[in-house]
Amino acid sequence: MLRGRMMDMPLLISSLIRHADRCHGDVEIVSRSVEGPIHRYTYADVHRRARQLAQALTRLGVRAGDRIGTLAWNGYRHLELYYGVSGMGAVTHTVNPRLFPDQIVYIINHAEDRYVFFDLTFAPLVEKLAPQCPGVEGWVAMTDRAHLPQAKIPGIACYEELVGAERGDYDWPQLDEWTASGLCYTSGTTGNPKGTLYTHRSTVLHAYAASLPDVFNVSSRDVVLPVVPMFHVNSWGIAYVAPMNGAKLVLPGAGLDGKSLYELFEAEKVTVTAGVPTVWLALLAYVMEHGLRFSSLRRAVVGGSACPPAMIRTFAEYGVDCSHAWGMTEMSPLGTFGSLRGKHLGMPPEKQFEARVKQGRAIFGVEMNIVDGAGNELPRDGKAFGDLLVRGPWVTSGYFKGEGGEILRDGWFPTGDVATIDADGYMQITDRSKDVIKSGGEWISSIDLENIAVAHPAIAEAAAIGVAHPKWDERPLIVAVKKPNAEITREELLQFYEGKVAKWWVPDDVVFVASLPHTATGKLLKTQLRNEFKAHALPK
Amino acid sequence: MLRGRMMDMPLLISSLIRHADRCHGDVEIVSRSVEGPIHRYTYADVHRRARQLAQALTRLGVRAGDRIGTLAWNGYRHLELYYGVSGMGAVTHTVNPRLFPDQIVYIINHAEDRYVFFDLTFAPLVEKLAPQCPGVEGWVAMTDRAHLPQAKIPGIACYEELVGAERGDYDWPQLDEWTASGLCYTSGTTGNPKGTLYTHRSTVLHAYAASLPDVFNVSSRDVVLPVVPMFHVNSWGIAYVAPMNGAKLVLPGAGLDGKSLYELFEAEKVTVTAGVPTVWLALLAYVMEHGLRFSSLRRAVVGGSACPPAMIRTFAEYGVDCSHAWGMTEMSPLGTFGSLRGKHLGMPPEKQFEARVKQGRAIFGVEMNIVDGAGNELPRDGKAFGDLLVRGPWVTSGYFKGEGGEILRDGWFPTGDVATIDADGYMQITDRSKDVIKSGGEWISSIDLENIAVAHPAIAEAAAIGVAHPKWDERPLIVAVKKPNAEITREELLQFYEGKVAKWWVPDDVVFVASLPHTATGKLLKTQLRNEFKAHALPK
Repeated sequence: MLRGRMMDMPLLISSLIRHADRCHGDVEIVSRSVEGPIHRYTYADVHRRARQLAQALTRLGVRAGDRIGTLAWNGYRHLELYYGVSGMGAVTHTVNPRLFPDQIVYIINHAEDRYVFFDLTFAPLVEKLAPQCPGVEGWVAMTDRAHLPQAKIPGIACYEELVGAERGDYDWPQLDEWTASGLCYTSGTTGNPKGTLYTHRSTVLHAYAASLPDVFNVSSRDVVLPVVPMFHVNSWGIAYVAPMNGAKLVLPGAGLDGKSLYELFEAEKVTVTAGVPTVWLALLAYVMEHGLRFSSLRRAVVGGSACPPAMIRTFAEYGVDCSHAWGMTEMSPLGTFGSLRGKHLGMPPEKQFEARVKQGRAIFGVEMNIVDGAGNELPRDGKAFGDLLVRGPWVTSGYFKGEGGEILRDGWFPTGDVATIDADGYMQITDRSKDVIKSGGEWISSIDLENIAVAHPAIAEAAAIGVAHPKWDERPLIVAVKKPNAEITREELLQFYEGKVAKWWVPDDVVFVASLPHTATGKLLKTQLRNEFKAHALPK
Repeated sequence: MLRGRMMDMPLLISSLIRHADRCHGDVEIVSRSVEGPIHRYTYADVHRRARQLAQALTRLGVRAGDRIGTLAWNGYRHLELYYGVSGMGAVTHTVNPRLFPDQIVYIINHAEDRYVFFDLTFAPLVEKLAPQCPGVEGWVAMTDRAHLPQAKIPGIACYEELVGAERGDYDWPQLDEWTASGLCYTSGTTGNPKGTLYTHRSTVLHAYAASLPDVFNVSSRDVVLPVVPMFHVNSWGIAYVAPMNGAKLVLPGAGLDGKSLYELFEAEKVTVTAGVPTVWLALLAYVMEHGLRFSSLRRAVVGGSACPPAMIRTFAEYGVDCSHAWGMTEMSPLGTFGSLRGKHLGMPPEKQFEARVKQGRAIFGVEMNIVDGAGNELPRDGKAFGDLLVRGPWVTSGYFKGEGGEILRDGWFPTGDVATIDADGYMQITDRSKDVIKSGGEWISSIDLENIAVAHPAIAEAAAIGVAHPKWDERPLIVAVKKPNAEITREELLQFYEGKVAKWWVPDDVVFVASLPHTATGKLLKTQLRNEFKAHALPK
């Protein structure tokens, strides 16, 4: 091999904050603090305090590779942890405080967090967790001495005192770019949470890709407000994208209601934002109710779950471009982005809309494939759907501590989603792999069947599951909940499918129940339903 | 070290063209061919033909690491060479056909090019070169059989025949990302040309950085026309940026005059272009002369040499944003880009203009420093000027075959430029390191002194050089050419400096000459002047 002669400069997270300091030092970071007031400072301040934090951690005995947990909102101290912890070679372990306490205990113990930093909101939670997490040497309240909570927390420390005791004359170590930088657990519907262990390399590459003109498209003239939490896959990378490009960053803290967000958007002249659909529903409802307009916002990115088509239209009426992003914790998280192609520009809005409702096109760096049950690649025609596989430099190759064993298929990560890809490269998720109904070697989308059922005026909620069948392997069964006081028969609902799907997609049977089981985050628990109905006798 | 668990996917040039094929397969590449007509095809076609080319090269015995020369304009076959040669693990060696034939011979022999591909324009040149390049096994004319030149070229081959004989069922090898991918020689004013040897890693990282919203900002809705040649530092990376983002690419071939460019801009709806100031002068002159407008162009990037301030204003009058880019062959080439900051948006155009005339701010990935003669870092106040040092993952660590020896200073690449950096991070080049005049431990900018001299109505051209001085080390001497029929004395010119520079910057002497020596590309040959005047006796 003839080796090229370019500098061997590792891709490091510390380079991001050093760049922001040197080239965008006076750009603001504005945070709604947990204590109450709006807090403002600059990238130069973040950089100085992140170095003070690295010194404080060093003084506490934290070493390269150690995990440091966080239970925190989007705020400036959380940002300092992102850079201080990863920059010194330790691992920023963001813990989702919305999980069940038992899951949080499992995660902190499994990660072997040496210290956990928490926002005041979570002091009561920490009080519960602490006795069950004996490995944690200290719980650091992210506040000053005056606001330190009066809680029974062993080894409690004060963030501002730790940081304030240091000078910040710290040189970031020149790490190997494969050094672990961050850790984030996924909470699946089955089994224990599993950790994705990011590297400095994957994080910086993801930040470059997420900044591209067809992705977040954030410049030094933008003001970015990530509603997506920093405890949820690094706020989709925005905590790295903003300093890379010198964008002003606005961190909303715990104020995620429509009013709080709208006021922050307007006061700070936010141009780009990102979050899940439920947040936007609340924001748009507030804006409509009060007859308001957005004076600076030009783009809202939607991810986490599919964006309701009506939301895209409503945002458009308010002059805001609403784009889908899709990804996973295991993908850092970005895989696709729903920006329009050049050819769409001359098309009527309805044609553009057909592209916008899909999950988007692959970002350079991520490769996607859809395959059938035998692993054969399926056509990219927008119709054929199969297991979605991905690979790329910011996709996981396996979970922390080897949990789940070998997870790749021939070097590809199986997303667990079933999807189509059209000729323009737009991917659309049609189902989860474990939920798709396999009938006679062909696949039936459970989500499509559910959507039809709930479109019937008498149906409140429905689940479509596969039930064993001697000839077809599996056949669809609908388990449905009627609306209060509504009446509908099995035959009426089955008839409702006619003309809406291929004949062989029409379910074999319907069972009406009083309620359906859900996960903590509100998703249908289909595993439980499949178990419950595994012996269900389908009519001949 | 705790190693993160992300996929080990190398950054490869073949990934760029594969991505463009899969995700933007129907996007056009439009070329003005050397044979005459406009040629159009798509990224899917580029990918197929690049694979056919890789097969043809393999059949010719080309192996990984071999250098393949090109003498070609911006055209689709040159693009195929970029991907076919680098993709297979060989090295795309772009040779500047505008150099003196002796230099080209030196470069081809020093690189040990096994094959050289050339556009028809350069057949007479190749006829001269071939006998002096015995190591070249074949000269491939980038045309079809019908247009094959009747020239005395040993081992001449036909591009379309080579490519047409292959099927294109080629799998790109999974290379190490440190594999050499490209080679480009710099032609300094002293010594032999030296080669910069790029890697797959540096090329892909540079493409990410060059695509950022504050840099080329090229999306899948853009149409890019690089006027900057593909034989000159990879057309500033645009040949990689366009497929990364799925932008339509328009390649102007040999038609670089104002009329040809304007027609192509309009016919293909070009939105972004990049080139040197002389090209834009010709284009703007054509547009003004014929009373034309740009219907789609929104941004012109200027590099290679400083952009005249008037050009930025003229472009603005035509609705085109004109931005500086700065870089070097040794930097792949981009180091800085002159986009505005957020704070400029509310300022009057004149304040914005002050930022625009500078060379720009560091792109994330490139670090810059200015240092004095002792290597001490200088303040970033827009006034202090010193040697400009750079480092980053797409900056060279040394020349091909070790020419020039160890070139780094403590890990930094000395650009050979003298520059200021202001508080907003904008860098401005004030001189070349070897031309700056060192007087009493302080530096005097030769360019500033020359600009004042030529501002005098009687002066046609002037050079400022340092002459040895027993007390001050060096003192400035002006060597000037008078305008025809103009009269001016030594004393009058020295008086002209008063009030324009600090007292100690005023030159010690003036010598009038009939003409000044220049390089082939029109630059002042100050080395020759310094030698000629090294014994010049300065007045007491």
